[in-house]
Amino acid sequence: MSKTRVIALLSDFGSQDGYVGIMKGVIASINPQITIIDLSHEIPPQQIWAGRFCLMNAYPYFPLGTVYIGVIDPGVGSQRRSVAIQVPRGYLVGPDNGLFSGVLSQEKAIAAVTLTNTNYWRVRDPSLTFHGRDIFAAVGAHLGTGVSLEQLGESIDLESLVNLTLETVKISEKGLEGAIQYIDHFGNLITNIPADQVRGKPWLIIIKNQTIKHSLTYSDGKPGELITLIGSHGWIEIAVNRGNAQKRLQVQWGDPLNLVFR
Amino acid sequence: MSKTRVIALLSDFGSQDGYVGIMKGVIASINPQITIIDLSHEIPPQQIWAGRFCLMNAYPYFPLGTVYIGVIDPGVGSQRRSVAIQVPRGYLVGPDNGLFSGVLSQEKAIAAVTLTNTNYWRVRDPSLTFHGRDIFAAVGAHLGTGVSLEQLGESIDLESLVNLTLETVKISEKGLEGAIQYIDHFGNLITNIPADQVRGKPWLIIIKNQTIKHSLTYSDGKPGELITLIGSHGWIEIAVNRGNAQKRLQVQWGDPLNLVFR
Amino acid sequence: MSKTRVIALLSDFGSQDGYVGIMKGVIASINPQITIIDLSHEIPPQQIWAGRFCLMNAYPYFPLGTVYIGVIDPGVGSQRRSVAIQVPRGYLVGPDNGLFSGVLSQEKAIAAVTLTNTNYWRVRDPSLTFHGRDIFAAVGAHLGTGVSLEQLGESIDLESLVNLTLETVKISEKGLEGAIQYIDHFGNLITNIPADQVRGKPWLIIIKNQTIKHSLTYSDGKPGELITLIGSHGWIEIAVNRGNAQKRLQVQWGDPLNLVFR
Repeated sequence: MSKTRVIALLSDFGSQDGYVGIMKGVIASINPQITIIDLSHEIPPQQIWAGRFCLMNAYPYFPLGTVYIGVIDPGVGSQRRSVAIQVPRGYLVGPDNGLFSGVLSQEKAIAAVTLTNTNYWRVRDPSLTFHGRDIFAAVGAHLGTGVSLEQLGESIDLESLVNLTLETVKISEKGLEGAIQYIDHFGNLITNIPADQVRGKPWLIIIKNQTIKHSLTYSDGKPGELITLIGSHGWIEIAVNRGNAQKRLQVQWGDPLNLVFR
Repeated sequence: MSKTRVIALLSDFGSQDGYVGIMKGVIASINPQITIIDLSHEIPPQQIWAGRFCLMNAYPYFPLGTVYIGVIDPGVGSQRRSVAIQVPRGYLVGPDNGLFSGVLSQEKAIAAVTLTNTNYWRVRDPSLTFHGRDIFAAVGAHLGTGVSLEQLGESIDLESLVNLTLETVKISEKGLEGAIQYIDHFGNLITNIPADQVRGKPWLIIIKNQTIKHSLTYSDGKPGELITLIGSHGWIEIAVNRGNAQKRLQVQWGDPLNLVFR
Repeated sequence: MSKTRVIALLSDFGSQDGYVGIMKGVIASINPQITIIDLSHEIPPQQIWAGRFCLMNAYPYFPLGTVYIGVIDPGVGSQRRSVAIQVPRGYLVGPDNGLFSGVLSQEKAIAAVTLTNTNYWRVRDPSLTFHGRDIFAAVGAHLGTGVSLEQLGESIDLESLVNLTLETVKISEKGLEGAIQYIDHFGNLITNIPADQVRGKPWLIIIKNQTIKHSLTYSDGKPGELITLIGSHGWIEIAVNRGNAQKRLQVQWGDPLNLVFR
């Protein structure tokens, strides 16, 4: 085991109530040497899809061996399983509700277990409403301290993990039919069209009767102009130079759009 | 002294202006090895009650020896005292305005001092408006580096510490009369009724002419249904399955409610 | 070089989307021992002036040798330069767009380079929209690990760095004419008048036809009263005792005011 493991934390807990701080306190109580990095705690409450997107995009940039704890968990205390999944870059820990299926669409899982070994929980009688504190933080800290996946619980079939799959991009007469899959805090609209479907070909986006031209950077064209470009996460994106595309177009998650090759 | 001490930080400084980062810079300047964990910096401005609640709930989950620095401090620069309090799990550092009285309602203080020894301040002539930076961060970092409580200033009588006490729950004909003591960012309503007053007995909550049934988890019942359950912090709570109870009921902090045993 | 270097991070990325977490993942991948401290990620999108103010005020409170990475970067991917600047307390890393000119108005730069050596980038073919991840985080982590400024790219003339200068305070018949340069999350109005222009002399502020009296602390006078005082960052400030001056006065960044000596 390397000296320092990293834990990356993702939740919908917000920053107001101290829930995230409590999870970090639990981790530091088990191993104060672990480096904890926040991915986001501002995932909209109970929006598994948004958490899935955020985790999928952040996953490749962390050190090998990182433990990713994800807690967007509307089913906490119900029959949904708690899992830990070994992946090439590290481990995913959290509820089995599809939150990890974005990462697993890009990387093959190696093994998975249900978290049934109460020795690695914070307490044997966990709260029915805060598994982030009583199970996931504790299990993640033990994984980050050298406990093996097998010790955490019973092995499960990788095929049985809950899978949320993105709406597929359809091929149309002149290009592609896609949709908005995420809207970031700059108001940039991230589509479900991967960049490798357009690489090398110029394109236009048509959304809400507006035609939007292809650019290379946010600052191409005039300030205030709508542009489409390849985003840093590898998806086709719609933005406004020094502005907010969501406010301009008034679109929502899932809204349709057309990509036209020129 | 153990190798790594943890400092837990609580304030109403928000995340926009860099005030929290400045406090962390002061701590790292004194001891870069200290692990700093944010509890919350989104306590509503000057709301000592909200900070008291957040700190009381988070306190038990941190490593032994943790230094908790709390800065909700509307009286900064006035005659209110600056204090450090030794408690069984570590130390509380901040203004003596009741912020620590939630923790002290659950754990007995061991000793307390006023922070009069300027050797452990950042500067001898501190700002009159930012003791978080010039006194509390510096004193907390020194405590976390092995300086003893006695070195920080003059001993004070534990009875003299400012005490904010929660409205008491009253016994009514059919159950209990309580109130909302905190509303979290999910819109869950946390009452002032501790779980040990209902353990083992089924109950109902009546609030704003609505009767709410007892559940075990957030996902019991139908999506959108109002439920009442034992929250993870040990208080009776009102929630909505996959929804927001505050938006539904339009209640405020302090609003009354009745708990009825069935 | 000391064992632990600190990286202070400033951006307009917000806390929702995971962009900041990704930058920290990149840093930890290069050197997991580095301590990372957030200054703010809630700078309003693309507001270089607000970032300049926040960095200038926080800069003096960090350990010697700190690497300050600042990413408010509306021109990312365009012709604007990427730079690293050596200053007495450490290093500034980010776009050359004036973000660092507040620090440089108080401390003389020692040397500066453009970040042209791709060996210290995360990848040789960086995203055109996220230099924070692909260039600045990686370069900052290498600087914090002992790589020298000279290795990062070609030396540039210090005079060529983009300079944003604050509107100058004018001397009027009875005092000074100034403006609001920043509004913090408490609603405190920070003017562009430095404290050393009033030290020892009593003064009044006149703004929007209201005359505001000089106080020493936020809690001077009655709750709800407008006051003016010397802020913790060394500028004349307007505040409300236990309230919000911005909401009361409905002023904006840049709004004018008069300071009158009594």
